[in-house]
Amino acid sequence: MEKVLLIGIGAGDPEYVTVQAVNALNTVDVFFVLEKAAEQEDLVALRREIVERYVHEPVRMVAAADPPRGRDVEAWRAERARLVSGLLAEETGVGAFLVWGDPSLYDGMIDILERLGVAYEVIPGISAVSALAARHRLVLNRVAGDVLVTTGRRVAAGLPDDARDVVVMLDSKLAFTALDGEWEIYWGAYLGTPDEILISGRLSEVADEIVRVRAEARTRKGWMFDTYLLRR
Amino acid sequence: MEKVLLIGIGAGDPEYVTVQAVNALNTVDVFFVLEKAAEQEDLVALRREIVERYVHEPVRMVAAADPPRGRDVEAWRAERARLVSGLLAEETGVGAFLVWGDPSLYDGMIDILERLGVAYEVIPGISAVSALAARHRLVLNRVAGDVLVTTGRRVAAGLPDDARDVVVMLDSKLAFTALDGEWEIYWGAYLGTPDEILISGRLSEVADEIVRVRAEARTRKGWMFDTYLLRR
Ligand SMILES: C[S@@+](CC[C@H](N)C(=O)[O-])C[C@H]1O[C@@H](n2cnc3c(N)ncnc32)[C@H](O)[C@@H]1O
Ligand SMILES: C[S@@+](CC[C@H](N)C(=O)[O-])C[C@H]1O[C@@H](n2cnc3c(N)ncnc32)[C@H](O)[C@@H]1O
Repeated sequence: MEKVLLIGIGAGDPEYVTVQAVNALNTVDVFFVLEKAAEQEDLVALRREIVERYVHEPVRMVAAADPPRGRDVEAWRAERARLVSGLLAEETGVGAFLVWGDPSLYDGMIDILERLGVAYEVIPGISAVSALAARHRLVLNRVAGDVLVTTGRRVAAGLPDDARDVVVMLDSKLAFTALDGEWEIYWGAYLGTPDEILISGRLSEVADEIVRVRAEARTRKGWMFDTYLLRR
Repeated sequence: MEKVLLIGIGAGDPEYVTVQAVNALNTVDVFFVLEKAAEQEDLVALRREIVERYVHEPVRMVAAADPPRGRDVEAWRAERARLVSGLLAEETGVGAFLVWGDPSLYDGMIDILERLGVAYEVIPGISAVSALAARHRLVLNRVAGDVLVTTGRRVAAGLPDDARDVVVMLDSKLAFTALDGEWEIYWGAYLGTPDEILISGRLSEVADEIVRVRAEARTRKGWMFDTYLLRR
């Protein structure tokens, strides 16, 4: 291929797409869609909606099943790289992957293209971090303070003592339920979508409600994407 | 006023504006522009360019001088809040402030509107963090790792021992020049603009170059906006 574009499409609302992304979308010859397990078909649908809505000429879409992530992360990454390499080998012109949110946060596509040594460009997108902040109308930092962006696994392993403003992603095990100390939480699920849920308050007062609402929503929709700010 | 919109316009490239922002821009009756000291008139010009480019009907623009930040941050914030309160009192309909980058990072507008108790909405934007990552094609986190977003002042005061991936904003004193240890740096100035400069490498090898290039650019343009990732 001539080149590959990694286009950040924002984390939920099709209107999070930037003008830069719309212009880039319209230079693409072929879109590659890695289809996740069935429960995340909404995410694939949103990518298709974005292509239909913003791409003015008919365009090729090539789908492939994204291999499920096993315990061996390195083996999984190598397998995905082989899959992408195979997809690219069959096409010419400008290819693109639509990346959820911003390609710079907790996404594997840049790593894959680096491994393959192909020419590529990255177009930034609205991350779940920015979406969470906007929907709760939050400033993430306090005066000249820092913001830690982290994962549920790291929260479960223990937050640094000096962490005061912490954005947590990828938390399937509800690490916030085991936190000590006085925290406020600003929680958001399916941000930017019609199913969006926002809950905030003192962690000790709202944790049970979040656990309950989250479980119900997860059952109803079959999948869950949530992000939260912890503030000490 | 009926309501106020805080519209994130992205950190440099007018094409970082989202479709949501473009749609919101077109509902606005009056734009408020807080003009910074002369050296930042480029930033005001970019806001005007965004309005001209994306707003389809003629619209009111109201400019006021943003008070300079003194040592007493609380007094400065109160003064800005008074200024904004005065601006809002004279207008009706939908008002908007165009916020550089994303309104959730190192920006004072949310705090001001909270103080004033006015009805407002926030529209997220591409932050300098996302712009930096895209232009260097970086994934900010490592596998399941965290990312610390911080300021030059905090870097100068000493980074936490366990910080491995650190994005630094608001560093006018070049805190990276005094860091101990083995770091890589990915530095970007005027990201997303025609003047963009990118430098990366081992900190010990490129620090002098960054200092020199930064000083030259700052003299030439009269102002400097730079952000960098430190990676241990
Ligand atoms: C694999 S990461 C991808 C992050 C993405 N690159 C970004 O910039 O937001 C997926 C995680 O992002 C967060 N996330 C993504 N979209 C979200 C949404 N619409 N609402 C809430 N959380 C979301 C969740 O924490 C989810 O577990
Ligand atoms: C007052 S903060 C505002 C940040 C903004 N809200 C955002 O989301 O990027 C200004 C700082 O942001 C960073 N910054 C903003 N725009 C930038 C650009 N185009 N290139 C490099 N750094 C930028 C610089 O560190 C600058 O000192």
